[in-house]
Amino acid sequence: MSEQAFNRPALEQLLGKRFFYAPAFSLYGGVAGLYDYGPPGCALQANVLDIWRKHFVLEEDMLEVDCSIMTPAEVLKTSGHVDRFSDWMCKDLKTGEIFRADHLVENVLEARLDGDKIARNAPVDVKADKDEKKKKKAAKVTAVRLEDNVVQTYKEILAQIDNYSGPELGELMRTHQIKSPETGNDISEPVVFNLMFASSIGPTGQFPGFLRPETAQGQFLNFKRLLEFNNDRMPFASAQIGRSFRNEISPREGLLRVREFTMAEIEHYVDPAKKDHARFSEVANYKLSILPASVQLSGKTDLLNITVGEAVEKKIIDNQTLGYFLVRIHMFLTKIGINPDRVRFRQHMANEMAHYACDCWDAEIHTSYGWKECVGCADRSAYDLTVHSNKTGEKLVVRERLPEPLVEEKLQLEINKKVFGPRFKKDAKAVEEHLAALDETTLVGLKKAHDEAGSFAINVNGSSFDITKDLITSFERVSITTHIREFTPNVIEPSFGIGRILYCLMEHVYWTRPEGEARGVLSFPPVVAPTKCLLVPLSTNEVFTPILNKVSAQLRRSGVSSKVDDSGASIGRRYARNDELGTPFGITVDFQSAQDDTITLRERDSTKQIREKIEVIVELVKEICEGRSTWAEVSAKYPAFVSQEVAE
Amino acid sequence: MSEQAFNRPALEQLLGKRFFYAPAFSLYGGVAGLYDYGPPGCALQANVLDIWRKHFVLEEDMLEVDCSIMTPAEVLKTSGHVDRFSDWMCKDLKTGEIFRADHLVENVLEARLDGDKIARNAPVDVKADKDEKKKKKAAKVTAVRLEDNVVQTYKEILAQIDNYSGPELGELMRTHQIKSPETGNDISEPVVFNLMFASSIGPTGQFPGFLRPETAQGQFLNFKRLLEFNNDRMPFASAQIGRSFRNEISPREGLLRVREFTMAEIEHYVDPAKKDHARFSEVANYKLSILPASVQLSGKTDLLNITVGEAVEKKIIDNQTLGYFLVRIHMFLTKIGINPDRVRFRQHMANEMAHYACDCWDAEIHTSYGWKECVGCADRSAYDLTVHSNKTGEKLVVRERLPEPLVEEKLQLEINKKVFGPRFKKDAKAVEEHLAALDETTLVGLKKAHDEAGSFAINVNGSSFDITKDLITSFERVSITTHIREFTPNVIEPSFGIGRILYCLMEHVYWTRPEGEARGVLSFPPVVAPTKCLLVPLSTNEVFTPILNKVSAQLRRSGVSSKVDDSGASIGRRYARNDELGTPFGITVDFQSAQDDTITLRERDSTKQIREKIEVIVELVKEICEGRSTWAEVSAKYPAFVSQEVAE
Repeated sequence: MSEQAFNRPALEQLLGKRFFYAPAFSLYGGVAGLYDYGPPGCALQANVLDIWRKHFVLEEDMLEVDCSIMTPAEVLKTSGHVDRFSDWMCKDLKTGEIFRADHLVENVLEARLDGDKIARNAPVDVKADKDEKKKKKAAKVTAVRLEDNVVQTYKEILAQIDNYSGPELGELMRTHQIKSPETGNDISEPVVFNLMFASSIGPTGQFPGFLRPETAQGQFLNFKRLLEFNNDRMPFASAQIGRSFRNEISPREGLLRVREFTMAEIEHYVDPAKKDHARFSEVANYKLSILPASVQLSGKTDLLNITVGEAVEKKIIDNQTLGYFLVRIHMFLTKIGINPDRVRFRQHMANEMAHYACDCWDAEIHTSYGWKECVGCADRSAYDLTVHSNKTGEKLVVRERLPEPLVEEKLQLEINKKVFGPRFKKDAKAVEEHLAALDETTLVGLKKAHDEAGSFAINVNGSSFDITKDLITSFERVSITTHIREFTPNVIEPSFGIGRILYCLMEHVYWTRPEGEARGVLSFPPVVAPTKCLLVPLSTNEVFTPILNKVSAQLRRSGVSSKVDDSGASIGRRYARNDELGTPFGITVDFQSAQDDTITLRERDSTKQIREKIEVIVELVKEICEGRSTWAEVSAKYPAFVSQEVAE
Repeated sequence: MSEQAFNRPALEQLLGKRFFYAPAFSLYGGVAGLYDYGPPGCALQANVLDIWRKHFVLEEDMLEVDCSIMTPAEVLKTSGHVDRFSDWMCKDLKTGEIFRADHLVENVLEARLDGDKIARNAPVDVKADKDEKKKKKAAKVTAVRLEDNVVQTYKEILAQIDNYSGPELGELMRTHQIKSPETGNDISEPVVFNLMFASSIGPTGQFPGFLRPETAQGQFLNFKRLLEFNNDRMPFASAQIGRSFRNEISPREGLLRVREFTMAEIEHYVDPAKKDHARFSEVANYKLSILPASVQLSGKTDLLNITVGEAVEKKIIDNQTLGYFLVRIHMFLTKIGINPDRVRFRQHMANEMAHYACDCWDAEIHTSYGWKECVGCADRSAYDLTVHSNKTGEKLVVRERLPEPLVEEKLQLEINKKVFGPRFKKDAKAVEEHLAALDETTLVGLKKAHDEAGSFAINVNGSSFDITKDLITSFERVSITTHIREFTPNVIEPSFGIGRILYCLMEHVYWTRPEGEARGVLSFPPVVAPTKCLLVPLSTNEVFTPILNKVSAQLRRSGVSSKVDDSGASIGRRYARNDELGTPFGITVDFQSAQDDTITLRERDSTKQIREKIEVIVELVKEICEGRSTWAEVSAKYPAFVSQEVAE
């Protein structure tokens, strides 16, 4: 099925018709970037989240939390989101139309390159390998031949389009004469647009808040409670599944860029001095397709196929914990039905990195829109815990008993408080704190002055203070023994955009039956399929009702979700409807069932059937849906059943 | 355990220490009404939601959806929330302190009644049966004796405190000299405060939005898609689990009144002419404790214990569908561990009803704060579908083929368009529409004038128009046959506040072991317990590791969640920690386990143990956790095991 040309409009029509999802508030004309999930989309999401929970949370004993979405502004000011969680926006100076600056540059340059190709009679690559940040509306393509060096420049700009700051984008627009695509009007300088939804909390309106743009902050703020809950053991991880909000400038591409979305995020806390992972050996030979930052900066997009062991050894991937999670992410995506050959890991370039990250690898999934970021795996270092700790004065650290006490020689200065207070009066405290905070190197210098000149001067808050010998009781080298090591953990954060993953999955499993009129099928793996089993009575005859009830009850007891379709449409039409819903199994109840308690089981992809006793069929379906067996095994063991009645 | 005096501070301390939940953003001083759930709270919530989904969604084949939280203002304007989803707020005129008006009146009057009791030397009832709407801060109680008729007036006011409008509350404040409790300052007139969080969508800031105050609107807006998904069959229900937001004036009482919360809502669409329920006979003999509106309006709170069958027959509960859901709600609450004797159903009085409801019964659960509304079961009639349809022009109706075509005689007036247009010009359309909309009775009158006088006059938009014979082609009785009945369904809405239910549950299952120092226990039913099983090696000896891994793996395969506690604390202390987490089972691995593959199983509430092979124990735990067996059955069948080693 992978050889078929992919037909996006047909898939979208199917997804709308079967209410996987639909634009929210469409009765009211809709709002860009907001979607509602209907029954099959909702069940698909629930199943994917269930697997996520088992694959990550249960498998690694993570601490799951469920935190507040509404967040005081002060928290997000500290985390850097108020100042830096933004995109660059610019306006058509006459019509006021709004563009995301990077999208605009990309859009216009790509159109010029396409125009150049037409002028050169070269094929224009319409759907291939377009990058994540795609055009809002395709800019008009005009056949104009460009100078060779201009083509080269455009290509280099596009390869690192994610790496430009706002002023740089403005500079590019001026240099390359970029105008508003439809009107040709001038464009404003890019200005910062914060992506958070603002609100205010409480009746007085004086308490500003934002909807969280990520679930992470709630986890960081609970770090102390979580560490304690974990009996102070390291490393450990917290996890959260929930809604986040981003007020995108121009949402587009369906579920791929939206304003409200379900995320699943892991914050794995690790000792910065020990970023090895206990289970790394289990994954070291797993091969990944990766695209390091250095390759992109050289203007290329060639993938490197490499074992994660080798990548970590060569420092292409910074450490074992990061490498371990990249493999776990890949395994998860494969498990839910994403085509593993259409997943790559792309490293962020310096300017594109979120303000909190020091390294980041995106799991990108290939779709008809190009490669799309679906999972980010960032090393947030000690950034968040440090800023919150500095702001609130609360220590967010791990205290670890050293295997051996650490003995250090240190220069120590002790002041004579009795003289200190009267001498410096209101400045005494500031001067004392200044002295206590001096580092070893500075102290060495000061001691020299102290020993030789009898005093030294320090500058505190713009005033100079003379520290004479009588202010000091001792200024000597002492030996200090430490039993406890205190450190702020680093955070490795795998962060999943569930809606994006669901959309990619639906693209990957979609195909059409070649026979007759094209009929769409969604070949979800049984484990994620919204409904596992369709029950189809041969007709609306009442004789089938008790058997249907019996099969239904047995499936429910086995934890297999099923639906009855007794609508009276032809069996073929009912199965077709069901193919569109991605239901892997169909059970037909016919007159023979009433006599001998046998039913037929049809598998969606092959449309092959077997016929066995109810108990046997229910157990087979259960085993396949729980991943303990496959249809290939089942169909090898049981004879194929062919019936006139249910021919399609 | 129910006879113990309930100690709320001790429970709250336990819930905080074990991180069931905690105030959100407490590092930043916290924000009233926002909470984070830690690992046990999060798991408890997930288990309760899982049971909810099975009990309602799967059992009745409801259509689950997952809709947008951010909602355009226009939608909530239409639904009535912008104008009417509000509380009455008043201010201390000097300090600016803000009160919810009904809480303030209640607070002050209750304090006066308490003062009166003291003055009369009567016992003051501190914790009993306080109503849902409790005081923000207890008003100062001063021993002042009141006139008997004043006491009576206050009591009558309090019995219907939920029934007053804002102006009425203002009137009560003036009549009864109600001032700001702490300062004695005058209070402002009550003003409306809208409870929705406002924001704006998109980069231009011109698109106002609100966070949804309920999940219902998303379901209503998808009504057409859902009806189609259900193959146009009625009745049916949609369901949604998700966050909603209410900007409470003064959040308090922990999880009971918060600003952000998880709801689970069902919208059951029913033919207004057929509010019977197909499964009503299954529940007709189920007894409920109910408090009808009429009883409250008479100033009383006596409960009526009655079968739902009788209540519906006597029209105390309006219809079968409403009655059916009240029973299903009661069954659900009992299943998750709420004490069924502490649940009552209270009917709303007219003024307290939400603007969209025509009838409403709250499932109230009794707690140390009094009776608390935890589930609302409202009859929203055709309100929401009608207002959205009127606003958007989209028909939100069910079309049903009539079993027999309906033949009606009707007076029909047909106009002569050729004369009509030239005669009335720009008014022609309005006059035509006016005529088309006339009802039978009016037409009969007009026909008389038409037949006798040859013309009649009508008034359209303030102008009079003379309808003469030449404007009419026919004005006769005709027979009209209808094959389709079109109607707007009514909606019965059971709506669950999950956080409130969780808090009530934690109160109901909390007790302390009487032996030695008081030790808290949370006796969650196994099916909702955050973790089902604690694994405890006798010591940190490595010999236990392989057995622990084996037991762990078998439990995981059986779908039973477990945690290992190999912390080195005494077994008694580890079990005590676990009692606080509400884990129903403890498994001890000791030296004998290493020899014969047996382990001991301890049940939390009885602290009794049995000892069997690993396989047997795992199967027993699985059966109990899935509700297929009980500890009573198990302990009757297997001999009790007593060991020195694990004595507590």
